[in-house]
Amino acid sequence: MAQPAVIAPPLKDELDIVIPTIRNLDFLEMWRPFFQHYHLIIVQDGDPSKTIKVPEGFDYELYNRNDINMILGPKASCISFKDSACRCFGYMVSKKKYIYTIDDDCFVAKDPTGKDINALEQHIRNLLTPSTPFFFNTLYDPYREGADFVRGYPFSLREGVPTAVSHGLWLNIPDYDAPTQLVKPLERNTRYVDAVMTVPKGTLFPMCGMNLGFNRELIGPAMYFGLMGDGQPIGRYDDMWAGWCMKVIADHLGLGVKSGLPYIWHSKASNPFVNLKKEYKGIYWQEELIPFFQSVSLPKDCTTVQKCYLELSKLVKAKLGKVDDYFLKLADAMVTWIEAWDELNPLEAKPAELSNGASK
Amino acid sequence: MAQPAVIAPPLKDELDIVIPTIRNLDFLEMWRPFFQHYHLIIVQDGDPSKTIKVPEGFDYELYNRNDINMILGPKASCISFKDSACRCFGYMVSKKKYIYTIDDDCFVAKDPTGKDINALEQHIRNLLTPSTPFFFNTLYDPYREGADFVRGYPFSLREGVPTAVSHGLWLNIPDYDAPTQLVKPLERNTRYVDAVMTVPKGTLFPMCGMNLGFNRELIGPAMYFGLMGDGQPIGRYDDMWAGWCMKVIADHLGLGVKSGLPYIWHSKASNPFVNLKKEYKGIYWQEELIPFFQSVSLPKDCTTVQKCYLELSKLVKAKLGKVDDYFLKLADAMVTWIEAWDELNPLEAKPAELSNGASK
Repeated sequence: MAQPAVIAPPLKDELDIVIPTIRNLDFLEMWRPFFQHYHLIIVQDGDPSKTIKVPEGFDYELYNRNDINMILGPKASCISFKDSACRCFGYMVSKKKYIYTIDDDCFVAKDPTGKDINALEQHIRNLLTPSTPFFFNTLYDPYREGADFVRGYPFSLREGVPTAVSHGLWLNIPDYDAPTQLVKPLERNTRYVDAVMTVPKGTLFPMCGMNLGFNRELIGPAMYFGLMGDGQPIGRYDDMWAGWCMKVIADHLGLGVKSGLPYIWHSKASNPFVNLKKEYKGIYWQEELIPFFQSVSLPKDCTTVQKCYLELSKLVKAKLGKVDDYFLKLADAMVTWIEAWDELNPLEAKPAELSNGASK
Repeated sequence: MAQPAVIAPPLKDELDIVIPTIRNLDFLEMWRPFFQHYHLIIVQDGDPSKTIKVPEGFDYELYNRNDINMILGPKASCISFKDSACRCFGYMVSKKKYIYTIDDDCFVAKDPTGKDINALEQHIRNLLTPSTPFFFNTLYDPYREGADFVRGYPFSLREGVPTAVSHGLWLNIPDYDAPTQLVKPLERNTRYVDAVMTVPKGTLFPMCGMNLGFNRELIGPAMYFGLMGDGQPIGRYDDMWAGWCMKVIADHLGLGVKSGLPYIWHSKASNPFVNLKKEYKGIYWQEELIPFFQSVSLPKDCTTVQKCYLELSKLVKAKLGKVDDYFLKLADAMVTWIEAWDELNPLEAKPAELSNGASK
């Protein structure tokens, strides 16, 4: 009897799922139908002597702090401890072209018809179709079935540009800062917005690391989640920092960034009082960070992500050092991050070429 | 016996509905529950001897070509004939603060629950709440119930800016250009995207005039729909032209532009062969128009919409005149439009102050 044709999961051998955690990964049970064929990179935060249990049948590698210190040596200083920012270590050790990263309090959401949403599949679709950063399409993603570019959209821009990042959203607990959490403790996101859109060139956005896909070859070295948590004056700005740096570099290199679908179900609001303590410096620093990132202009000879990132670290040191000494330390860590990245990823000919090709 | 409380329709005495047409306005029957309390300005295109029937019970004024010629005298040359671009005459003669304009082949759409959508009410909501052009909010309109600004959104930007334009969308027949209509004759828009968003500062978009609201005091003089139709080398670019001019001026004056909800039901696709004839020059001209508008920078002393618009007309003459002589004529018409606007709207002190206040 003929077997039904088995369709291989998309990008099965080209994508790693990166999960930062401090607890047993029971949440993976719910994701099993969608994640089981992919390789997981688990970055264990906190006490390295603790054993993290991973449900049976998943293919994974796990790194705790001892592993990170051993692999990176003194350069391990650029990887945060006791903060989910440590996840970017997983981006660095991956050998795949694509990364999907998800928090362990994120579950499978349902679409309005009640069907389980395969978030990973939607991220892959977002990453494999172009972006349109130079002009806004009022019917959203023009490459989606049943949609197209509308009247008045220049034809020369319809080819789009390669997509570097796919930023997914969250039903249930929205990603609010501590003050908003305190003011609206009961607010839940129940609105399913059936859209994916390109964040236009020159526009910054708050990138959340909870449900995030990216093309590691195109943008990986820009996805540094900064210095947060243990021994640092700030937390919960890891993904924001990465998002602002990444967006400036993606804009410079002519790469696209999408936001919208897919949704995950975010189950647990973190404690707003604890969050306020982590965030409060960020809340006033960001008032200076945003104008800084809005004004960044990278020189033409920055044709790779690494070159862009090192240039950005210099600007951070020169312009944000006066906001707080923390940014001097962060600028140094940005350099260390790139050195460590290049050490672990020595064959950079391919991504460099790609970035070159995409630069304008 | 106590009467049930009657809630007055929002902005009843502050909004005009502008409808360009060449036929009897039977389509208003379907809109009766939503439009009946508002004043209509009907701009009759084509043969002025034809009588346009308006369903009973609507409060309206109607202008045909003879009226336009009589009211504007030689300045009537700036108002297009045999093209829906003539609608902008209605913006000029209105004395209200807000305008809603709709095409006569647009019907009431239904939301996913099957409920009739009150498009006008949603436009009013869009216009009365601020816009957020300086930073992208990933949960879309932060002022909507159940939504807010997400983590990482600078607090200094959460007040937003006044909204000048609310651009609504279309279910059923999408607003495609002739080539796309020809290639995809059967495509229908069935996707209801439950979102309103601000088009970011510095980003241009294709503004469609089918279902459009705006604050006439804030942006009215920029809503000129150009020279199209009879005696002109181009058609179907009226709203696009207005949108590009308007966006550049709104960005300069620190005003917001939203796109998204509400949907109307667009019933009739126009003939793609006829459209191609109207559009084909626009299709290649727009390749030069977009870079032009992207590069426009208005001087600081342009503190009113009128000053901005006159400055823009000079730039059009200087930079687009070499694309085609048509743009020399259009630049002159832009000046005539402003002269006519100021003649019909002599008390401009109020809008000028408002614009001043909003400029940055």
